[in-house]
Amino acid sequence: MQLERVLICGSLGFSSLECIAMFSGIAEIIFLDCSSRQELLMALQSGKEYDGICGIVRHWNAASITGPFDEEFIESLPRSVKYISSMNSGYDMIDIQACKRRDILVSNTPGVGDDATATVALYLIISTLRRLSEGERSVHSGLWRPPNITHNAHDLTGRTLAIIGLGGIGMRLAELAHAFPMRVLYHNRHRAARAPKYCEFFDAAHIDEMLAMADVLSIHVPLDDHTEGLIDEKMIRKLKTGAVVINTSRGRVIDEAAMIRALEDGHLSAVGLDVYPDEPKVNPRLLDFSNATLLPHLGGVSAETQMQQESQALSNLKEFLSTGTARDLLPELR
Amino acid sequence: MQLERVLICGSLGFSSLECIAMFSGIAEIIFLDCSSRQELLMALQSGKEYDGICGIVRHWNAASITGPFDEEFIESLPRSVKYISSMNSGYDMIDIQACKRRDILVSNTPGVGDDATATVALYLIISTLRRLSEGERSVHSGLWRPPNITHNAHDLTGRTLAIIGLGGIGMRLAELAHAFPMRVLYHNRHRAARAPKYCEFFDAAHIDEMLAMADVLSIHVPLDDHTEGLIDEKMIRKLKTGAVVINTSRGRVIDEAAMIRALEDGHLSAVGLDVYPDEPKVNPRLLDFSNATLLPHLGGVSAETQMQQESQALSNLKEFLSTGTARDLLPELR
Repeated sequence: MQLERVLICGSLGFSSLECIAMFSGIAEIIFLDCSSRQELLMALQSGKEYDGICGIVRHWNAASITGPFDEEFIESLPRSVKYISSMNSGYDMIDIQACKRRDILVSNTPGVGDDATATVALYLIISTLRRLSEGERSVHSGLWRPPNITHNAHDLTGRTLAIIGLGGIGMRLAELAHAFPMRVLYHNRHRAARAPKYCEFFDAAHIDEMLAMADVLSIHVPLDDHTEGLIDEKMIRKLKTGAVVINTSRGRVIDEAAMIRALEDGHLSAVGLDVYPDEPKVNPRLLDFSNATLLPHLGGVSAETQMQQESQALSNLKEFLSTGTARDLLPELR
Repeated sequence: MQLERVLICGSLGFSSLECIAMFSGIAEIIFLDCSSRQELLMALQSGKEYDGICGIVRHWNAASITGPFDEEFIESLPRSVKYISSMNSGYDMIDIQACKRRDILVSNTPGVGDDATATVALYLIISTLRRLSEGERSVHSGLWRPPNITHNAHDLTGRTLAIIGLGGIGMRLAELAHAFPMRVLYHNRHRAARAPKYCEFFDAAHIDEMLAMADVLSIHVPLDDHTEGLIDEKMIRKLKTGAVVINTSRGRVIDEAAMIRALEDGHLSAVGLDVYPDEPKVNPRLLDFSNATLLPHLGGVSAETQMQQESQALSNLKEFLSTGTARDLLPELR
């Protein structure tokens, strides 16, 4: 019997041998052996190396080679591809509508990066409120403390955190912030069923009220047509003067130009960003702000989280191969 | 009636006018008007500007002018000085034995900086375990992620934190770390009466056992003759390979040379430091380590903490002026 073939795009923390063993007798595992998207698209063509594969595992660490799984990419896949298993929880890099048209199922790894990403959001809150990133840069530049640091630094305890999107990551951040405690407000389309009592809900009609109370606004929504540019000039200006904006979701959720204007005129006292509209490019203007803490999208990046993502993505693949479906199929495709 | 005179060394977040009003009819408040220690020592001499003062309030933000309140300084004080009110909780900058010999009472502001300092310790733990400081420097140098970041970054959740010194700051850090949760071990001379159940006690006979279990060692002891160089080569080598050392207490508690050797040979995977043996000097060798997170002693530095320190130090002064003692007298002088 000819085994189904699956293409792994990305390098695994699991050794390749372990992965091959895991699918022994179930599928033949092929590891991506291309150095560019163009080369990959070629190899997917009829009669070429990857023709006939039934599924693809997409690891974020191969994104610089594969590029996004956009319409062009999905259209280029051989007809044999029926399934994509993504290592990420976010799936804005995959064109779901194009997958739908081609009858390709897609699963992700929801929940796995929640703790790691919320931890980075907490780091950014501490860094911006207490001006610690600025302090570090001051030490590295051969100075000691930056000027006016005492006046500008603020404790987390007793301050108000507003969360937009109380899903897995937002909820985890709420728990961590509650340890101080910070007061926790949130906006979702609907009240979050699992939200602890200390999380105060604001519906769409009352979102301005929430923004006016927030010392820190932290964003935890997926990027889609509804959320692109969600945090716009109007919302930013509803925040009180001196508020801080934290983003560990996706860069395009914020209108970056509006945010930069608010930093320039002091409406925002600081921003903590892990994500940018054109990653890995960072708008050089941001580097000029002493109280911008800028991370290179490390929210879900830890050895433990990666291992868990990989094992969940491979479990999903295994389930798909034996049953034709998977526990973590995207809701849009169920 | 001639009012007693008190010298305030430091600039207050309280306006000077508010401070003067607070002591209206009780004491005359004088603000330090010297630009060097030498000038101050001159002004304290018999018949000079500050002769006859009954007390001094010592703010850390004047330390660059006053220098330490060491034996030389205390000996130079006019006989009229009976009391020193320190804004800090730490008092290693004041020679307590010299004060004792001169019958000068000293109070500090215990507890006030606990939350702020523990927050900085938590920041340093996140920064070092997740390699976030390194990530920030990478963005600022025009790169994106540092190499091997996934392999090197670790979640806090589920890892083991060992605290040396479970006093106010150590206890607060334990609470914050427990939110993840991290497992919390601690060493004190005696079991801490107020320690929550999740804090596991290790006495002196079992400290090696604790060190061998720790992923992160965080130090929260005051600097004195017993603790200078406490974290020495031997203790550092009892930690497991790849452990992280966090210090927000005082630089001299660690044998810096031993710590640097352990960074060089990879025994320690990272250090997070807010304090140094010769502040504000930072050993330039430390700047070379990509996973050293270095802060300019910002543990207790926040607007809210400073206001609270000032108000507590001034309350202590007020109490001393009316009763001859103060709630926060140092235990050594009670």
